[in-house]
Amino acid sequence: MPERLGVVFVGLGPIGQEAAALALKKSYLEVRGGVDIDPQKAGQDLGDLLGLGRRLGLNVTADLRRALDEASPDVVVLCTGSYFPQVFGQLMTIIEAGASVVSTCEELVYPWAGYPDQARQLDMLAQKHGVTVLGTGVNPGFVMDTMALFFSGICQQVRRVSAWRVVDAATRRRPLQEKVGAGLTPERFQAAVEAGRVRHVGLRESAYLVAAGLGWRLTDYRETIEPVIASEPVATEYVSVEPGQVAGLRQVGRGFRDGEPVVELTLEMYVGAKNPRDVLTIDGVPPVEVEVPGGIHGDRATAAIVVNAIPRVAEAPPGLLTMKDLPLVHLRA
Amino acid sequence: MPERLGVVFVGLGPIGQEAAALALKKSYLEVRGGVDIDPQKAGQDLGDLLGLGRRLGLNVTADLRRALDEASPDVVVLCTGSYFPQVFGQLMTIIEAGASVVSTCEELVYPWAGYPDQARQLDMLAQKHGVTVLGTGVNPGFVMDTMALFFSGICQQVRRVSAWRVVDAATRRRPLQEKVGAGLTPERFQAAVEAGRVRHVGLRESAYLVAAGLGWRLTDYRETIEPVIASEPVATEYVSVEPGQVAGLRQVGRGFRDGEPVVELTLEMYVGAKNPRDVLTIDGVPPVEVEVPGGIHGDRATAAIVVNAIPRVAEAPPGLLTMKDLPLVHLRA
Repeated sequence: MPERLGVVFVGLGPIGQEAAALALKKSYLEVRGGVDIDPQKAGQDLGDLLGLGRRLGLNVTADLRRALDEASPDVVVLCTGSYFPQVFGQLMTIIEAGASVVSTCEELVYPWAGYPDQARQLDMLAQKHGVTVLGTGVNPGFVMDTMALFFSGICQQVRRVSAWRVVDAATRRRPLQEKVGAGLTPERFQAAVEAGRVRHVGLRESAYLVAAGLGWRLTDYRETIEPVIASEPVATEYVSVEPGQVAGLRQVGRGFRDGEPVVELTLEMYVGAKNPRDVLTIDGVPPVEVEVPGGIHGDRATAAIVVNAIPRVAEAPPGLLTMKDLPLVHLRA
Repeated sequence: MPERLGVVFVGLGPIGQEAAALALKKSYLEVRGGVDIDPQKAGQDLGDLLGLGRRLGLNVTADLRRALDEASPDVVVLCTGSYFPQVFGQLMTIIEAGASVVSTCEELVYPWAGYPDQARQLDMLAQKHGVTVLGTGVNPGFVMDTMALFFSGICQQVRRVSAWRVVDAATRRRPLQEKVGAGLTPERFQAAVEAGRVRHVGLRESAYLVAAGLGWRLTDYRETIEPVIASEPVATEYVSVEPGQVAGLRQVGRGFRDGEPVVELTLEMYVGAKNPRDVLTIDGVPPVEVEVPGGIHGDRATAAIVVNAIPRVAEAPPGLLTMKDLPLVHLRA
């Protein structure tokens, strides 16, 4: 590993920006550029875009290939899309330029779940170019999957893994409040679910990642999305919800082995959730229950885990890896 | 990695036996022998000693070197002592026989804390012979150290790490109840502490492991041991404690950076503890609090993590490693 790892940030939405600002504070990282197709961002100095109050002498560009040529990064942080097909072409370009990747793409956390052929193709290309590709984040990437595998390390036997995450969407950004359907009528919620506009991406990937770690082959996976109906009025910065309207969603993903649900992941995200928290339950020997009162902060923590994963990815063997394959991702001061 | 890893168990006390029994259930492990110097155990068939109700055709021997010669294990599970000097010679013998090691030796979890020169010597020897040595367990090895590092992975910054473990010693074996001083008068407790007979081994190692992971150099480490005085009578299978007598201990280890306590580990182990639990608090961005109600079961979980670490150690680069260096140790069915 070189003394300082060169990093380029691709996709400068809120998470990409927060990760870039954090990376600038790390002595072992050298931020070498930023890429975003938004014409409002391309052309700006990265320091201005991040609101640092100082210029970095690095112009954000809309041209990924040019940024890779100019910066020759060791690692690219890719925060452009939630779906694997959205990032596939970008990944190919980055891999062919000889850079490793840490991405917040939800489906990249375990792409074999939904896209086994392209995942294999990516894995082979990464191996050919000697680089490593990782999808990570908080959910998916940590709280419902890696954390379950981490605690399975103290189990002699595991029969079933359950994770339950309750998020108060009122404390989160507008896109999240929209994604969970806050303020819709039950009918419009149903239509939005059917159109794929109301949905959290990544439950399936978490379930398959847990199963893969434990050595389980899932024979089926099923997911349900239901509205959480407000029983009292809730007003946020962005939306007002009346009793009887939708406050948010309750999404449950279940992975089955031979008819038995062995991984059960429940995500409740709604405005006005009274007791946000993360709960992991392992039915095993010994049984394990873990609670994170208040819950893990999605945005702060995602930017952190992305940056903390960079040195691990730089040292890792080449290929398309997952969080279970890496040495413990921890903070390095 | 060969299809099945050959394993020899050295030290067949309760944890060594539980780990061996667990290893026998794993299709990727092949138990090839057991070693114990206890004349009651040496000579027995391992299956009889483990109470399996069947013989394994493996005689327990008191002769470590002979067992290594005969079994040529890939990995040795070493459960013979808590202190690094106790296991140092055994480790040398095993490494020179070409086997990797997973050990429950508390001080081996981070031997650079107390024995930097011998740790370096061991590291070099392991590298020379192409084998890997790991100390692990639940405490130290998981709950106050690896778990803290695991959750630091979602932090942008960490100012201070605190772990607090409360164990009801009444639910544990006699040696643990003795180790915590249950039933002593306050005066005899004090004398036993000064003689080193009442003490949990490994707090220092946990503190230094956390610091090493986070990139902190500790400038000082201090530990206190105080009695927990019973306020009501408690009777266990092994001991009766009257009000005013000692129910157990409260041991606090503090690691300092430039005068500031940055790692604070509190271990309370006493008979009659009402609300056993593990609590991890990270003062950072974002702050993280994690609770394990009931606490992680020390014995079940230690046997589990030892066995679950075997494949990771077999695949790892050679040398004296710690839990922060290994890929996620998780259960493999």
